[in-house]
Amino acid sequence: MVFKKVTLIGRSSESFDHATDDAIDRAEETLDNVQWVEVEELGVEVGSVEGREYQAEVTVAFEVE
Amino acid sequence: MVFKKVTLIGRSSESFDHATDDAIDRAEETLDNVQWVEVEELGVEVGSVEGREYQAEVTVAFEVE
Amino acid sequence: MVFKKVTLIGRSSESFDHATDDAIDRAEETLDNVQWVEVEELGVEVGSVEGREYQAEVTVAFEVE
Amino acid sequence: MVFKKVTLIGRSSESFDHATDDAIDRAEETLDNVQWVEVEELGVEVGSVEGREYQAEVTVAFEVE
Amino acid sequence: MVFKKVTLIGRSSESFDHATDDAIDRAEETLDNVQWVEVEELGVEVGSVEGREYQAEVTVAFEVE
Amino acid sequence: MVFKKVTLIGRSSESFDHATDDAIDRAEETLDNVQWVEVEELGVEVGSVEGREYQAEVTVAFEVE
Amino acid sequence: MVFKKVTLIGRSSESFDHATDDAIDRAEETLDNVQWVEVEELGVEVGSVEGREYQAEVTVAFEVE
Amino acid sequence: MVFKKVTLIGRSSESFDHATDDAIDRAEETLDNVQWVEVEELGVEVGSVEGREYQAEVTVAFEVE
Amino acid sequence: MVFKKVTLIGRSSESFDHATDDAIDRAEETLDNVQWVEVEELGVEVGSVEGREYQAEVTVAFEVE
Amino acid sequence: MVFKKVTLIGRSSESFDHATDDAIDRAEETLDNVQWVEVEELGVEVGSVEGREYQAEVTVAFEVE
Amino acid sequence: MVFKKVTLIGRSSESFDHATDDAIDRAEETLDNVQWVEVEELGVEVGSVEGREYQAEVTVAFEVE
Amino acid sequence: MVFKKVTLIGRSSESFDHATDDAIDRAEETLDNVQWVEVEELGVEVGSVEGREYQAEVTVAFEVE
Repeated sequence: MVFKKVTLIGRSSESFDHATDDAIDRAEETLDNVQWVEVEELGVEVGSVEGREYQAEVTVAFEVE
Repeated sequence: MVFKKVTLIGRSSESFDHATDDAIDRAEETLDNVQWVEVEELGVEVGSVEGREYQAEVTVAFEVE
Repeated sequence: MVFKKVTLIGRSSESFDHATDDAIDRAEETLDNVQWVEVEELGVEVGSVEGREYQAEVTVAFEVE
Repeated sequence: MVFKKVTLIGRSSESFDHATDDAIDRAEETLDNVQWVEVEELGVEVGSVEGREYQAEVTVAFEVE
Repeated sequence: MVFKKVTLIGRSSESFDHATDDAIDRAEETLDNVQWVEVEELGVEVGSVEGREYQAEVTVAFEVE
Repeated sequence: MVFKKVTLIGRSSESFDHATDDAIDRAEETLDNVQWVEVEELGVEVGSVEGREYQAEVTVAFEVE
Repeated sequence: MVFKKVTLIGRSSESFDHATDDAIDRAEETLDNVQWVEVEELGVEVGSVEGREYQAEVTVAFEVE
Repeated sequence: MVFKKVTLIGRSSESFDHATDDAIDRAEETLDNVQWVEVEELGVEVGSVEGREYQAEVTVAFEVE
Repeated sequence: MVFKKVTLIGRSSESFDHATDDAIDRAEETLDNVQWVEVEELGVEVGSVEGREYQAEVTVAFEVE
Repeated sequence: MVFKKVTLIGRSSESFDHATDDAIDRAEETLDNVQWVEVEELGVEVGSVEGREYQAEVTVAFEVE
Repeated sequence: MVFKKVTLIGRSSESFDHATDDAIDRAEETLDNVQWVEVEELGVEVGSVEGREYQAEVTVAFEVE
Repeated sequence: MVFKKVTLIGRSSESFDHATDDAIDRAEETLDNVQWVEVEELGVEVGSVEGREYQAEVTVAFEVE
C-alpha cells in the first residue's frame, strides 16, 4: 500500500488554523485513510472578497490500496 | 469550497506561451472553474523529437464543490 | 496597471494570525488597492521583549496606476 | 497530448530502490503511458513499524490524451 | 551609488514577454537608471478575467544616488 | 558569546500557535537565554492520533557562554 | 554512456523564446547528441544595451560516450 | 512531549542504504524513541579514502520527555 | 509598529564586508530605525568595471511608525 | 590549486547506487584528482527504455592545477 | 564513526570572516574532531548593538565515536 | 555570442574574499572575457588541513564566441 498526495487550498474568514481545517475537512469527505498534512503556503486574499480570506495551501497524504 | 491543484506539462513546437496554453486548454476540457495557473518549470525536449518541443510544467488551480 | 509588492513584518503578543493582520492593517493605511498577501516567514521574538512577540513577514501586493 | 504528474510515496522494508519501485509499480497498475519519475524525498519510518520502513516520495509523469 | 530592487507584476492578454515588458515599461516611467530585471514567477490568471491574463513577477534593479 | 540553534517540533490538539508555544515552553525548561524562534514547517498528523494534532517544527536560538 | 550538463545564457533583442533558442543553437554547433534543455533563469538586461536584451540561462544535457 | 531533531552523516563503503542505516544505528545507540528519519543529502567521498565512501546526511527525529 | 524590508546592492572595490557596509550606509542615510540586515547574494562584477567590484545584495529591515 | 565541478547523469538498469557509480566511473576515466561527488537529483526513465533506467545527476569536484 | 552537525551563529564587530572564526573557535573549545564548516546565512545586527555586529550562521561537522 | 558558466571553488588560508579572488584568478588564466561571478557557497575546511582553509564556490560567467 503506497501513499498518495493531493494539493488543496482551504479558505476561512477567520484564521489560518480554520483554513487548514477546511482543507482537511474536504479531504476527509472524499478520501479514506488520510494520514498527515503538510502546509505549503499561507496567504490572505483581500481584493476580491469582503474583508479578508485566510488561505492555506496544503498537501494531504492518504493511503491507497 | 476549496481549491484543488493539479500538475500538467503542456507541449508546443513553437513557444513557451503555446506550451502553457496547451496545458490550460487541456485543463479546461476536463475541469470546471479553473482559477489560475503557476508556471513551475520551462524546458525544451530535443533528442526524441523532430526539431524542438517547448514544454511548460504548470500547476492549475480550480474550485471544487 | 501593474501590481507592486512590498515586504512588511507584522507583530503581535497573541498569535500569528494577529501578526499577519497587523501587517495588512498597516499596508491598508498607506496603500490603496491591496489585492493579496503571501506569508514568507513566521517567527517568535523572545529575548528582547516581555513574554513572546509573534512575527509574520509578508509580501503585500497592490495595484499601482 | 499533455503530460500529467501525480505524487506517490512507495514503501519497502529493504531499500530506497525498492521503495521507488513500489511507487512505480503502483503507478503502472492504474495509469497508462508512464514516462518518467522524479525522486522528491527519501525517508525512513522507525517509530510506528517493526524494523525500518524505507520511503520514497516520487512524482510520476504520464501521458494523457 | 548602490542599486535598489523593487518587485512588480506585469500583465498582458498576449504573452509572458509582453507581461515582462509591461512591468519594465512601468518601472521606466517612474525610475531612472533601470539596470536589469530578473523574472521571479510566471503565471496566468483565468478565473477573474475575460480570456487569459499572462503575468510576470519581476524584480527591477536601478541605480540610486 | 555565540548563539546556538536546536530544532524542536511542538504539538497541540488545538492550533499552530499552541504547537509553536509547546516547542518554546520545552526549550525554556532546559535552555537559558532563549532569544528567538523561526518556524520551519507546519503540519497536521491525522492517521495515528485521535482527532488532529497540529505540529510546528521550529528552530530555537539561544545564547551559549 | 552518461549525460553531461553545461550552463549557457542565450541572448535576444526580441523574446525569451529566442534567447532560449540562441543558447540551444550555440550548444548544437559545438556538441553532439543534445538531449534536453532546462530553463534556470529568465532576465532582461537594460542598462548596458540599446533597448532590451532578453536572456535565458539554461542547462543543456547531452550524451557523452 | 515534543520531538527533537539532530543531524548525522552516516558512512558506508557499499551503498547509500547502508550509509543511511549507519546513521540510524548510531542514533539508536544514544537516543530513545527514534521516530523517523529524513534524508537531506547524498554524496560520495573519493579523494581522502580508499575506494569510495557513500555518505548520507540525515535528520533524526526522536521524542523527548 | 511594523517592520518594513527593502533590498539594496552595495558595491566595493575591496571586499564583501565593505560592499555590505556600503548598502547599510546608504540605508541609514535615508531610513530611520534600521534594525538588521540579511545578506541575500554575493557576487563580483568583472566585465564592465576596472578591476573587480564586490557586490552584496542585502535586505534591510527598519521600523515604520 | 582550485577545485572545479562538472555535472554528469549516470544511468543503470539496476539501482541508484549503480547509476551514481556510473557517473563517477566516467568522471575518473577523463579527470584526474576526483575529490568528492554530490547527488543533485535521482530519477527513473520509463517511457523510452526497456524496463526502468535509474538515473543519478551528480556534481563531481576535482582538483585543477 | 558518523559525523554530527550542529548550528552556531558567530558574532564580530569587524567582519564576516571574524564572525565565522568566532563560531569555529567556540566549536573547537567544546568538540573534538571538527572536520568542516558550512556558512548558512550572513547578517548584520544594527538596532540592538553599538555600531554593527556581523553574524555568520554556520553548521559545524565533527566526528563522533 | 552567448555566455557560458563554470563552477570553481577557490581556497585561501586567510579569508572568504581571498578564496573568491583565488577562483577568479584561476578563471582569468584560462578563460577570456570573464564577465561576472556569483558566490554559491562559503565553507571552511578544518579536519584535513593545517589551520583553516576558507573556500568559496562560485560560478564564473564568460562570453563565448
